[in-house]
Amino acid sequence: MTKKDNYHMDPETFRTQAYAAIDWIVDYMKNIEDYPVLSSVKPGDIRKQLPDAAPEKGEEFEAMLKDVNDIVMPGITHWQSPNFFAYFPGNSSGPAILGEILSASLSVQGMLWATSPACTEVETQVMDWLVGMLGLPKKFRSDTDGGGVIQHSASDATLCALLAAREKFSDGKVNKAGGRGNLVAYTSAQAHSSIEKGCMIAGIGTDNLRLIEVDDLFRMRPEVLDAQIQKDIEAGLTPFFVCTCVGTTSTLALDQVAEMAKVTRKHGLWLHVDAAMAGPAAICPEYRFINEGVEDADSYTFNPHKWLFTNFDCNAFFVADRAALINALSILPEYLKNEATNAGAVFDYRDWHIPLGRRFRALKLWFVIRHYGIEGLQHHIRKHVSMAQQFKRWVQDSEVFELVVDNPLNLICFRHSNGDEASEKILQAVNDSGEAYLTHTKLDGRYTLRLAVGQTHTEMEHVEKVWRLLNDEANRI
Amino acid sequence: MTKKDNYHMDPETFRTQAYAAIDWIVDYMKNIEDYPVLSSVKPGDIRKQLPDAAPEKGEEFEAMLKDVNDIVMPGITHWQSPNFFAYFPGNSSGPAILGEILSASLSVQGMLWATSPACTEVETQVMDWLVGMLGLPKKFRSDTDGGGVIQHSASDATLCALLAAREKFSDGKVNKAGGRGNLVAYTSAQAHSSIEKGCMIAGIGTDNLRLIEVDDLFRMRPEVLDAQIQKDIEAGLTPFFVCTCVGTTSTLALDQVAEMAKVTRKHGLWLHVDAAMAGPAAICPEYRFINEGVEDADSYTFNPHKWLFTNFDCNAFFVADRAALINALSILPEYLKNEATNAGAVFDYRDWHIPLGRRFRALKLWFVIRHYGIEGLQHHIRKHVSMAQQFKRWVQDSEVFELVVDNPLNLICFRHSNGDEASEKILQAVNDSGEAYLTHTKLDGRYTLRLAVGQTHTEMEHVEKVWRLLNDEANRI
Repeated sequence: MTKKDNYHMDPETFRTQAYAAIDWIVDYMKNIEDYPVLSSVKPGDIRKQLPDAAPEKGEEFEAMLKDVNDIVMPGITHWQSPNFFAYFPGNSSGPAILGEILSASLSVQGMLWATSPACTEVETQVMDWLVGMLGLPKKFRSDTDGGGVIQHSASDATLCALLAAREKFSDGKVNKAGGRGNLVAYTSAQAHSSIEKGCMIAGIGTDNLRLIEVDDLFRMRPEVLDAQIQKDIEAGLTPFFVCTCVGTTSTLALDQVAEMAKVTRKHGLWLHVDAAMAGPAAICPEYRFINEGVEDADSYTFNPHKWLFTNFDCNAFFVADRAALINALSILPEYLKNEATNAGAVFDYRDWHIPLGRRFRALKLWFVIRHYGIEGLQHHIRKHVSMAQQFKRWVQDSEVFELVVDNPLNLICFRHSNGDEASEKILQAVNDSGEAYLTHTKLDGRYTLRLAVGQTHTEMEHVEKVWRLLNDEANRI
Repeated sequence: MTKKDNYHMDPETFRTQAYAAIDWIVDYMKNIEDYPVLSSVKPGDIRKQLPDAAPEKGEEFEAMLKDVNDIVMPGITHWQSPNFFAYFPGNSSGPAILGEILSASLSVQGMLWATSPACTEVETQVMDWLVGMLGLPKKFRSDTDGGGVIQHSASDATLCALLAAREKFSDGKVNKAGGRGNLVAYTSAQAHSSIEKGCMIAGIGTDNLRLIEVDDLFRMRPEVLDAQIQKDIEAGLTPFFVCTCVGTTSTLALDQVAEMAKVTRKHGLWLHVDAAMAGPAAICPEYRFINEGVEDADSYTFNPHKWLFTNFDCNAFFVADRAALINALSILPEYLKNEATNAGAVFDYRDWHIPLGRRFRALKLWFVIRHYGIEGLQHHIRKHVSMAQQFKRWVQDSEVFELVVDNPLNLICFRHSNGDEASEKILQAVNDSGEAYLTHTKLDGRYTLRLAVGQTHTEMEHVEKVWRLLNDEANRI
């Protein structure tokens, strides 16, 4: 049928337009370095070019693709540019995009096993693969009492860990009767904001979240954690949850999980490991030290959508006791009942996270792992770390920049020796050039530049370029 | 560079493989009716065909596409089949898939305006378009104190509404000090399970969620709501939140929003409207009666990923007072600070939902609206309703089936006049045939069949076929 008949895009028109979209993407892949990394539009620049109201009549795809070029692209900050060193990588890859294309087209709902068994089973299998690939404890595998699930983001995963722990430590009373303001959670003073947000959402309250002091390497101090828990117990409160960070956002600081585990074991608390960005490093045996002690963790999360070539969203979340998670989140109305669920023979992933609906995200992760193989993934993780470490040595040898903290992985924190103003000016100038993009943080009150190396196509030449740009700007001021 | 060199998929290889993926999709679109709608695999059937561990060496895309055909497809329940009448529609379309393809390839993070301004601004504009398209109150537009945002699912949207209301009615105390078990929420006894789940997550507690009795049309009874609120106030509790349903999951029952609003106005409570599935009907002026009274709502949500041809995930969530939402969810660590945010000139959507990260989902919704135009969307909504209404008349005229509830839109609830066992047998037989797929619910304790008409490509012939199948099975028993 033609569009005239029924407004739908018929399959042959779809083929033509999809080829055009693919050609557009290939051009983008080839020419991505021609775009300024950081968009320079001002607030409202994009919106003012868009019509005030939706069109009455349908338009051709060509018009949309033209608007993507003319209106959208100037407003894009290019996370897929090899010159992107800001925040954290949000990398993608060919096989991931192919998986997303098929997933969008099948467009199944994976809320229950029964609503598309392959959506659940491929996911369970790939999550088990990850346990092996990262050297994580067997208790996170689905053939034990635990298991893995793909979540939207690490924020969601951490919230789910909080909820599972909350219900376990309140004997299900919060789900039933609401919070009582007596549960206390703990994390590093350098932890990601999602822990605080999770405590707000879950009704724990930020007053009941202890941000534990860090050491010189920005790692949570175990003796301070222990003392704080003791103090809270003596005050009649109920400590229940510790989130330890394998790679903080600011500096990629690596908490000593084994030391944290000693404390949580002693007090019988839930130990959650947030390895959002650094997690993929464990694919390489030589970096597995980052997870030492994880055998004692109750839950673990990391983001394939950060540093594992799988486009957002694809967070991996593992629990040792899936019953605790399901108890916290399960609801079974009549309209979702079915034979497989009733028999208890399957995983229904809607009970493992906040939303009911879920798309077939395992497909892209499956494709990425199969395309690269463990060998290819290790190659790129190693290469990213090696490039970052090379950059670190340049900083160490520099007369104008100084290293703020020595990190063994792929995030380097540094600053200009003249202080905050100089550092900030340099950052601004490099970003304004459009040649590279970095972001900042504050450490011990001082303005600090961050270089995160993890974009799929970053090569040594790009790291060399950003170093040159930084030095050129430093010379200019 | 070739794969041998660096394991990546080079752009030209990507083009070839993506064309192959597109060809696969076009074949799927053309042949979708050849697949049994409901997958008939048994638990474990898919997994046992997958390797135990991730491959060491990379594989070719051809191998993956082969496994999709041989292993995945038998485990797919075809939500995109025109013979899919189960649960709710989860429909997709050509322009939506094109949008998802571009979004996956740009793969930007829209957490802040600054991290890709176009991702935020296109979204804000398209959400404003929706306000106009659906005839929603102006206060949900971004140029007032309100605004719209794309969420992952209606579960997330409702949770966010609950959190915004919770903080407003506790003066921010729950975020700070944790829950106190004194806040009471209200919804229809026929409401979606996500309201209950939201109350668990937000630490409200299911004991503090009142499931209000419904009338013969399964609509929440305003006088019962009013009396219950009064009773809770007298008991010293704090009523704060009412979720009213424009289209319940079981029967698509339409609460009388105006009647609910009278009650919430009287008591000064937050009124949230959950129009997850029925919402898109309001694109047609003749169906706008479903939202009568929505001018008094504080928040409103519906799912373009259900019945607006936009593949999952794409939930639309509107608030009248965005400050209340942002107050409940905002966290601003140093590493996210930037000029535009500091100036207050922009929306940072990470403060409007649970996760921090977000992909460019507005692109596909923008493409869908532009492809169909308001005219095309109205055409299909009307057609779906008209087909469901035709089915309803067949049921009414039938000697073996009886209508359970008279619904004016696209979900028809009916049963066999011989009772539950007959109804269940018929459902099972139709589903097992692979020719069509329906699901059930229980109403007043009785097993009830549901026919949801909303799949993108459902035509009258498909509705005729499922009616024939139902009657054939009825004759057989």
